[in-house]
Amino acid sequence: MMHAEIVSIGDELLKGQRVNTNAAEIAAMLSLEGVPLRRITACSDCEDEMQDVFSEALGRSELVLVTGGLGPTRDDRTRNAAQKLLGRGLTLDPASLREVELRVSARGREMTELMRSQAMVVEGSLAIPNIKGTAAGMIISCAPRFSQRHLVLMPGVPVEMQAMMEGTVLPWVRERSETTIIHTPVRTIGIGESTLAEMIVSVEDSLPEGTTVAYLPHGAGVDVMVSTIADLRERAEAENAAVAGAISTLAKEFVYTVGNRSIEETILDMLRRQRETLAVAESCTGGLVASRITDVAGSSEVFTGGFIVYSNMAKEEQLGVSRGLLDAFGAVSGEVARAMAMGCLQRSGASVALAITGIAGPGGATPDKPVGMLALGLARQTAGSPGPHVESSVLFMHGDRLQNKLRFSQAALRMLWESLRRSDSSSE
Amino acid sequence: MMHAEIVSIGDELLKGQRVNTNAAEIAAMLSLEGVPLRRITACSDCEDEMQDVFSEALGRSELVLVTGGLGPTRDDRTRNAAQKLLGRGLTLDPASLREVELRVSARGREMTELMRSQAMVVEGSLAIPNIKGTAAGMIISCAPRFSQRHLVLMPGVPVEMQAMMEGTVLPWVRERSETTIIHTPVRTIGIGESTLAEMIVSVEDSLPEGTTVAYLPHGAGVDVMVSTIADLRERAEAENAAVAGAISTLAKEFVYTVGNRSIEETILDMLRRQRETLAVAESCTGGLVASRITDVAGSSEVFTGGFIVYSNMAKEEQLGVSRGLLDAFGAVSGEVARAMAMGCLQRSGASVALAITGIAGPGGATPDKPVGMLALGLARQTAGSPGPHVESSVLFMHGDRLQNKLRFSQAALRMLWESLRRSDSSSE
Repeated sequence: MMHAEIVSIGDELLKGQRVNTNAAEIAAMLSLEGVPLRRITACSDCEDEMQDVFSEALGRSELVLVTGGLGPTRDDRTRNAAQKLLGRGLTLDPASLREVELRVSARGREMTELMRSQAMVVEGSLAIPNIKGTAAGMIISCAPRFSQRHLVLMPGVPVEMQAMMEGTVLPWVRERSETTIIHTPVRTIGIGESTLAEMIVSVEDSLPEGTTVAYLPHGAGVDVMVSTIADLRERAEAENAAVAGAISTLAKEFVYTVGNRSIEETILDMLRRQRETLAVAESCTGGLVASRITDVAGSSEVFTGGFIVYSNMAKEEQLGVSRGLLDAFGAVSGEVARAMAMGCLQRSGASVALAITGIAGPGGATPDKPVGMLALGLARQTAGSPGPHVESSVLFMHGDRLQNKLRFSQAALRMLWESLRRSDSSSE
Repeated sequence: MMHAEIVSIGDELLKGQRVNTNAAEIAAMLSLEGVPLRRITACSDCEDEMQDVFSEALGRSELVLVTGGLGPTRDDRTRNAAQKLLGRGLTLDPASLREVELRVSARGREMTELMRSQAMVVEGSLAIPNIKGTAAGMIISCAPRFSQRHLVLMPGVPVEMQAMMEGTVLPWVRERSETTIIHTPVRTIGIGESTLAEMIVSVEDSLPEGTTVAYLPHGAGVDVMVSTIADLRERAEAENAAVAGAISTLAKEFVYTVGNRSIEETILDMLRRQRETLAVAESCTGGLVASRITDVAGSSEVFTGGFIVYSNMAKEEQLGVSRGLLDAFGAVSGEVARAMAMGCLQRSGASVALAITGIAGPGGATPDKPVGMLALGLARQTAGSPGPHVESSVLFMHGDRLQNKLRFSQAALRMLWESLRRSDSSSE
């Protein structure tokens, strides 16, 4: 099997001035082709350092893809480093030269020696045309020093790299590849990584050969990524689907999707399918839930809007929560969350209303209501029933202010998702 | 001089499922401390591979910072790889165990062996408390095998890594450094990088030795980072303050703070000082402006709340915008933005109201109103005047949906900041 590595050139990466998105994009492309990646290395544009990195990478892996350092300025030394390492000269690629000439004349400029140098490739390489810029890329066969090894040089400009990968490098890789790899994320909400791991331990203990499971916790839950590599696409797909399905059955109370959709997209799809519209009333999350929902294009079809009711006065005036209720139970209580949800339902005209009230911190706690306390309310119009269905729930989180806001918003989306799931299955 | 490297552990990086933002953040932090970085390597969570990578990195550089693979699941093998490489056992860190126990009991759970394992550190290391999670970090002295070398292990969860860097690792690095480095960000809003650079060219042309200026553009504006390195702290501070002051004078129309405060914090301070309260009415930003404001602790003192009015109906019912106005000018217009601001002012009881209506895209454009169009409205109660002061402004942005939402929110905050600045200076 062919293994690959990525080398990213540039001092700006080592100073943290640029995030290495190129490497992630190339890695994702190779992963979809079933080419496992061994390492990603970022190094400076110093020639000696590059030679060391190239030589080490070619010693380990069959295919080394390099981005950056192919431009016309004096800190662009990648071509030179490859030449020195392999003891090769440069040769002009006529097709690339024509591309550069066309581009230069289209801008009404004169060709300079510097521009011409952009069409020079290392001897013994396949030139990669640059349809988005001027510097030619190249796939260099590294024999005899590194037998059966290839070094691919591409510019660091993302659109130029992407066009070269798609147009030349990936087709070249496909011709040489014997395996297929399939990835499926099983996405969960409301469960921690270790509890989830315990829940699906029986699947992990009997994985078929070629299939692996990885946990990807993030602010919005834990994804379980199921990856399968096999010679035959059909076998890879079948084995991958079986494992993803088994995990999703064992953890079904927490799995909102098998695939790439976010919880926000999942919820919006469910609302659309059930012909519901949504409004929100937010206190402690201060608009975050609404902002997450409206991050999804097309959310305006089902999301009518909301109320940000930070103060008690706003809860009274905008939602009609009674002063008596606020005094008796406090703003962070199941009772007030229910009243907020009911007020939001009535005043928005939506068919589902979600209300969030809590203490994000660091201030605002009282002796019986700690920072991290959250009350959620949900009100739904129900067909054939005299009044709306209302529910509430009280939870406790343990983060700082921003973590709490995110976890509160996540808990609110989870409550909504569970309600929609119940009505989804009851309508089946 | 101490050189450093970063090693990022995780198959998800090699599969391109996650962009390596951790490495960029750590690199930026080290760069600010004057510690040069030699390489960034991402590798799999396979123990043998990690041992190779650690050993190579420790052979080249004095300080190797590792993130990832410290969690409780079986693909978390970083601790084991470090143990095998250095031939060390594990030891329980009592302080970390207490942290884990507190966190677990606060959630009403039972301690398990897996949870307890999160407090184990490699022998001969300094434990790094994890104030945001459960897995302890550690700074491992690698002598005798790697004399004068240190391996730092941290979790891959960004907030946990950040807290460990700031709380323990950077102070530890500073103690070992012989020079002082001072950084001051001069933070701007509403001006591009190249225009800003022209505006302050005279300062850049006469920088004292040891002082550098870097432009850090981000979603919320451009920061000019002024860095001064010197043997004596007093000299570094004085020279740094002089340059930051000169830049802030030249670009004063655009500088909202010299130091680390965000635009949200700056605005909340101005509101507090001027005894104003704020409410917002958001259409296209869908709660993002309110969410950004409520990210700041204590915002409830001056932020009363807001209205998320996605649909025309919501604009009519929640804010009293007239149907006639919506029909005549369209929802995205200066006229409707003014009416939204007036409605928000009246119905919230706040003294300042900010309204945002626009087309974030990709849908929603009309022949005369493109994606990216934004109308802002601002209404303020003014002492001694019969009615509120109202203003509006129409702008055009050119991003995708999420970029537009962020830029819209930024433009709205800028409008508010400018209004508050005028009243700040008129009250002096």
